[in-house]
Amino acid sequence: MRLLHHHPEVQKIDLYTSSEEGTLFSMKYPHTTKLYDQPLLKIDQAQLTNYDVLFASTPAGVTSRLLPPLIGKGPKLIDLSGDFRLNNVADYELWYKKTSAPIKAIEQSAYGLTEWNMEAIRQADLIANPGCYPTAVLLSLLPIIKERLIDASGLIIDAKSGVSGAGNTPGPMTHFSETNENLTIYKIHQHQHIPEIEQGIEQFGNYKTPVTFTTHLVPMTRGIMTTSYAPLTKGVTEEVLIDCLKDYYDGRPFIRVMPESAKFSTKQVYGSNFCDMHVKVDPRTNRATIVSVIDNLVKGAAGQAIQNMNVASGLEETTGLNQVPLFI
Amino acid sequence: MRLLHHHPEVQKIDLYTSSEEGTLFSMKYPHTTKLYDQPLLKIDQAQLTNYDVLFASTPAGVTSRLLPPLIGKGPKLIDLSGDFRLNNVADYELWYKKTSAPIKAIEQSAYGLTEWNMEAIRQADLIANPGCYPTAVLLSLLPIIKERLIDASGLIIDAKSGVSGAGNTPGPMTHFSETNENLTIYKIHQHQHIPEIEQGIEQFGNYKTPVTFTTHLVPMTRGIMTTSYAPLTKGVTEEVLIDCLKDYYDGRPFIRVMPESAKFSTKQVYGSNFCDMHVKVDPRTNRATIVSVIDNLVKGAAGQAIQNMNVASGLEETTGLNQVPLFI
Amino acid sequence: MRLLHHHPEVQKIDLYTSSEEGTLFSMKYPHTTKLYDQPLLKIDQAQLTNYDVLFASTPAGVTSRLLPPLIGKGPKLIDLSGDFRLNNVADYELWYKKTSAPIKAIEQSAYGLTEWNMEAIRQADLIANPGCYPTAVLLSLLPIIKERLIDASGLIIDAKSGVSGAGNTPGPMTHFSETNENLTIYKIHQHQHIPEIEQGIEQFGNYKTPVTFTTHLVPMTRGIMTTSYAPLTKGVTEEVLIDCLKDYYDGRPFIRVMPESAKFSTKQVYGSNFCDMHVKVDPRTNRATIVSVIDNLVKGAAGQAIQNMNVASGLEETTGLNQVPLFI
Amino acid sequence: MRLLHHHPEVQKIDLYTSSEEGTLFSMKYPHTTKLYDQPLLKIDQAQLTNYDVLFASTPAGVTSRLLPPLIGKGPKLIDLSGDFRLNNVADYELWYKKTSAPIKAIEQSAYGLTEWNMEAIRQADLIANPGCYPTAVLLSLLPIIKERLIDASGLIIDAKSGVSGAGNTPGPMTHFSETNENLTIYKIHQHQHIPEIEQGIEQFGNYKTPVTFTTHLVPMTRGIMTTSYAPLTKGVTEEVLIDCLKDYYDGRPFIRVMPESAKFSTKQVYGSNFCDMHVKVDPRTNRATIVSVIDNLVKGAAGQAIQNMNVASGLEETTGLNQVPLFI
Repeated sequence: MRLLHHHPEVQKIDLYTSSEEGTLFSMKYPHTTKLYDQPLLKIDQAQLTNYDVLFASTPAGVTSRLLPPLIGKGPKLIDLSGDFRLNNVADYELWYKKTSAPIKAIEQSAYGLTEWNMEAIRQADLIANPGCYPTAVLLSLLPIIKERLIDASGLIIDAKSGVSGAGNTPGPMTHFSETNENLTIYKIHQHQHIPEIEQGIEQFGNYKTPVTFTTHLVPMTRGIMTTSYAPLTKGVTEEVLIDCLKDYYDGRPFIRVMPESAKFSTKQVYGSNFCDMHVKVDPRTNRATIVSVIDNLVKGAAGQAIQNMNVASGLEETTGLNQVPLFI
Repeated sequence: MRLLHHHPEVQKIDLYTSSEEGTLFSMKYPHTTKLYDQPLLKIDQAQLTNYDVLFASTPAGVTSRLLPPLIGKGPKLIDLSGDFRLNNVADYELWYKKTSAPIKAIEQSAYGLTEWNMEAIRQADLIANPGCYPTAVLLSLLPIIKERLIDASGLIIDAKSGVSGAGNTPGPMTHFSETNENLTIYKIHQHQHIPEIEQGIEQFGNYKTPVTFTTHLVPMTRGIMTTSYAPLTKGVTEEVLIDCLKDYYDGRPFIRVMPESAKFSTKQVYGSNFCDMHVKVDPRTNRATIVSVIDNLVKGAAGQAIQNMNVASGLEETTGLNQVPLFI
Repeated sequence: MRLLHHHPEVQKIDLYTSSEEGTLFSMKYPHTTKLYDQPLLKIDQAQLTNYDVLFASTPAGVTSRLLPPLIGKGPKLIDLSGDFRLNNVADYELWYKKTSAPIKAIEQSAYGLTEWNMEAIRQADLIANPGCYPTAVLLSLLPIIKERLIDASGLIIDAKSGVSGAGNTPGPMTHFSETNENLTIYKIHQHQHIPEIEQGIEQFGNYKTPVTFTTHLVPMTRGIMTTSYAPLTKGVTEEVLIDCLKDYYDGRPFIRVMPESAKFSTKQVYGSNFCDMHVKVDPRTNRATIVSVIDNLVKGAAGQAIQNMNVASGLEETTGLNQVPLFI
Repeated sequence: MRLLHHHPEVQKIDLYTSSEEGTLFSMKYPHTTKLYDQPLLKIDQAQLTNYDVLFASTPAGVTSRLLPPLIGKGPKLIDLSGDFRLNNVADYELWYKKTSAPIKAIEQSAYGLTEWNMEAIRQADLIANPGCYPTAVLLSLLPIIKERLIDASGLIIDAKSGVSGAGNTPGPMTHFSETNENLTIYKIHQHQHIPEIEQGIEQFGNYKTPVTFTTHLVPMTRGIMTTSYAPLTKGVTEEVLIDCLKDYYDGRPFIRVMPESAKFSTKQVYGSNFCDMHVKVDPRTNRATIVSVIDNLVKGAAGQAIQNMNVASGLEETTGLNQVPLFI
C-alpha cells in the first residue's frame, strides 16, 4: 500500500479480504489515515477481472485455487505466495505439504525474479513473485555460478531474517517477549525456500545441485542477510568475483555491488527496493563468502511485485520505486 | 539527505563538514551508494553564499557564530540547532550554558513552527527550526490553549523519545548495551526545550506559564510521543477539544487528528512529516490527556526544515514530503 | 519457576495446567532443560490441597471460582490475578467486566503489598498479589501521601511498561512487528489497575481521591517505570521528600531510594525484586516528580509473590530473592 | 560483579581501575546500589598480590605487561583478554597487531576452556580465559572432530553475537541508532578469534586445519550463536553425532545437548553459564549443521572465569554459578 500510494501510474487501489469485509483499512493501520480511508471489500471473482493488475498476498495453498480461473481474463496476476513458484509439482507437495496448483497454470506463469527473467515476465499473465530468501540468495550467486567461478556443489547458505518475514499472524515465533533480545535458528534444512533456490540455480545458473540452507530469526522487523560460502574455482580471485557481479548488473538500477571498505548491513536497504551484495575471498581456505541484503518486505515481496508490474505493463522498471533507504 | 533526494525542485546538494573533509558520504553511510557518492566539502564562508538554501545541522553554540554573517547575503538560512530559537538571550544562556547568538540576528529570524508562523517564515532570511519536543507539544496544545479550553497553568508534559534524538555522537546515552531493553528518565525539569515550549505557548497561545516537562529515552531509534495533562475548563467536553483541533488544522496536510478507536503509537508517523494527535477526557478527574506523535528526525527536524524551505521559497508546502509512514 | 528454583526452602515444585496436560515444561521453555524436565499436570482440586503453598497465575475471572473452595483447606493461596484485589465488588465488575469473586472470600484475603501489609499477609490464607503498576506506584507514593507532603488530589501518573506485562498470549499488542521500534499509548484512563491504585492510596495513605493514570507500551520485554506528578504541600522541599522515603523504607531490603546524580532507568532492577525510586522537585512550578522502577515480572508479579510466601511461611523475607539485577 | 556477589566463597571484592579512581561503582552502575557502594581503586602492583584471585578485564595489549610480574607471587591470575591465549607469538602479533606477552609467561599459562583443560587449569598460576566465540565453537565441535565424525577441513563457521561483545566503549559499532533494527557482518575472515579456534581444534581435537569463520552483529545485548557446517564422515548419522556429544559431556553441569523438537535460541542461556548445543544432519547434502549458544558475558567471559577460579581453588565447579537462565 505504501509503495502503490507513491506510484505515479496507479490510479485506484481496492483491497479485498476474505475475513475482514467492511473494516476501514486506516482503523486497522492508522498510519494510512487520510491516505487510504477505504473499507476492505469482499472477494468477488467477477469484480476482480475489472482491474489491470491484481496482487495476491495470501498464505500458501490459497491462490492455487483462486487465481487459475482468472488467467487470461484481463488483469495481470502477480502472486506473492509460493503456489506457482515451483515447476515440479512433487517438490511443492513435499516442501509445502499442500496440494499443488494445476500444472497448466504453473506452466503459464513466469518466475518473477525481475533481473533474470524479464522477457518472460513481460509476456506472462501470471507472475510468481519470488520468495524473500531466494531473491537475496539468487541475485548474489547467479552470476558467479553461471560463470563457474565457485564450486556450487559445495554451497552453504546461512540466512538471517527480521521477524516480519514470519507474517502478520500472531504466534510464538512473532511474540515480542520470546523474540526480542533473542536469536533463533529454525527449520534447519527444512525451509520451503530450498527447492526454489535450487530451481533458480538450475534455471538461471545452469547448475544442478542440492544446497545446505539454514534460517535464523533476528530481533528486528525488516531485513534479510544471506551469507553464502563456497570453494573457489582454481585461479579465481576476489577481483574476478566482484567484476563478474558488476558486469552482470551493469545498469541495473536496484543492484549495488558494495566496495570493500564500507560497512555492510541490512539497514542500508531499509524500506527500499535495493539488493546490495559484497564478496570476500578467504585466502587461507580458498573459499568465497558472498553476502547479500534486501528489505524482505520490499525487494523480497511488495517492491519486486511492483517492479514486475512495471515490466509487465510496459513502464519504466523503477517507476514508483525510488525510495531512498531509511538508514537511521 | 533522504528527503532532499526525493525533492523534485532540488537540483544540487553539497555537504560541508568541519572535520571530515574529503570523506565520501556513501562510505560513511553506505545506504546512499549510487545516490550520493560525493565527498564532504570543507566549510568556506565565501562558497556558502552561492546556494539558494543553507541547512545548518550542528550542536548548540556553533551557528550563533557561523550564520549571522550570512544573513542577507543570498541564501535562505535554516538552522536546526537551538541557537536562534529563544528570543530572550538570558534564557538561552541559562538553559544552554553557552553564549547566545547576537540579539540582532535573533530578531531577524523567524521561529519555524510552520503551521503557526507561516507569514514570518515566508519573509525571513533566517529560520530557527524548532526543537523536536516543542514541535510535538506545541502543535497538539496551541489550539486548545489559545481557546482557553484547558487551564494551562496546570500543564504537565511527559515526553518520550527514541535514541536518535540524542544525536550522532557515541556516548553512554546512545550505547546500545546501556539503552537496549531499557527505559531511562533524564534531565528531569532541566531540558533546554522547556523555555522554547513556554515561549511558544506565550507567543502563539497568548498564555504565559511555566510548565512541568520531563523526558524519557525509549529503546527505539525514531519517534517522539508527548503525553500532556491539564485540568479542563468548566463545561468543556472531549468533543469540544477534538473539534477545536480539527478546526484549527482543517486543510493542513501534515496534521492528523486521530479518531478514538484507532491505536495510537509513534510508528504511525515513522519516516513521514505527519504530526498525529489524539485527545481523551478523564471524566473522573475532569482533566484532558492530549497525546501527540512525530518522527523526531522528520517533522521534528529535517522534514520541518524542508517544509520551511518550501514555504520560504514559494513552493507548495508538501513538495517532496509526501512519504507514506513505514509502519511495519 | 526461575525464582522458585533458586529458593533454598522449596523442596518440590509441581505445575498444573488447564490446557496443556502432559507437555514437558522444558520442551515448551528450553531454558529449563536439566532444571525442570517434568510434565504439566492436570488441575485436580483434591490434589491441590496437598501443598504448603499454591500460586495461581491465570487471567482474570478464573481464580474467583477456583480458589474460594480451597481457603482454609491447608495451602497458603497466593493469587496473581486481579480477582481478590478490590474490596468493592462493584469496582471489580465495572473495571474488569466480569463477575466478582464471592465477597466472603475477598474479606478473608490480604492485599499482598508486602512492605505495607505484612501483618495481614502473615495471617491470611489467601493473598491477593498486587498488580504490577500499583506496586510501582504505591511503593513510591504512599509515604509521601500519608505524610501529606503533596496534594494527592492533583496526582497524575504516567506509566510505562515492557511488553511482557501484556501476557503470554500472542496478539496484536505483543506482535513483534507492531511493537518493535514503536511506543504505544493504550487504555487511556481505562486501565483496570486504576481502582486498585486508588484503593491502596485510601487504605495505606488515608487519602481518598481519583487519580489520572495512563499506560504506555515500551519496546522492551521487562520493566515498568511510573512517573508521578503532584503539587507540593507548602514548604516541602526535595530533601523533605527524600528523607520521608528513606525513613519509611529504612531497613527494607528491596527498596532503594536513589541519589540524585545516578542515572535512573528500568534496567537497574532487571531480574531482581528491587523497587527503586527517585524524587525531583520542580521549583518553577512547585510540583514534585516521583519516579519508580520495578521488574514487572519480579517485584511486579512472581518476586513479590515469593516475598509474600516467605512472610506467610515465617521465613526471612529475602529468602531466595537475592538476585543481583542484570544491568547489561 | 553480579556473579561474584552471588558466590558463597567470595569474601571481599575490590575493583581496580586505571582511569576512574575514586568513582563509586554504584554511581556508574546504579543497579549495584546497596550491593556494592565502594569506590574504584587505583592499580598498585604491591596491593594486587594480597588477593587469592585476580581477574583482569582489559583490552588486548595491557595484561601482557601487567600480569607477568605477578606470576607466582600469590594470587591465581585469570586474564579475560586475548594476551595469553595463543601459544604462537607470531599468530598473536599477526591477528592482534600488538606486541605479544613474553613467551615464558604464555608457557606458564593454561588455556581456560574448563571442560577440556581442567587438569592444567588446576595447576596453573595464570589462566587465559577463552574468547567468547571460541568457547561456543570449540565446546560444540571438539568431540565430533576428535572422533573424526566430520571432515573438519571443510569447516565453515557462521557466528552471530549480541552487541555487548563489542565492549563497553561507545563507538559506531555500539551506537544504538546504527545497531538497532540492523544486522551487520564485520571482520569477514579477519576476526582475531580465528587462530584461537584453530589452535583449540589442534590442541584438543588433534586436527590441524584453517577454518572459514565470519561474524555478525545482532541487535540484542547478550548472546552468541555459532552455526557450523561440515561434511559428514561416511556412515555417520545424526544419532551418532548426538550420542558423541552426550557421551563427552555426560555429567558436565554446564553443557546441555538439546533434543530435536525444542526451539533453539540464544535466550535459553541468558544470564547463565550454560552452553547449549544442537545437531542436525542434512541428508540431501550429507553435511552436519552444529549449533551452539552461550551468554557471551557469562560462559563466554565472566562465568567461565569464575568456573576456572572454582577449579583452580579446589571448589566445586558450579559454586556460585547456578543461575537459571532469564528466558523472558
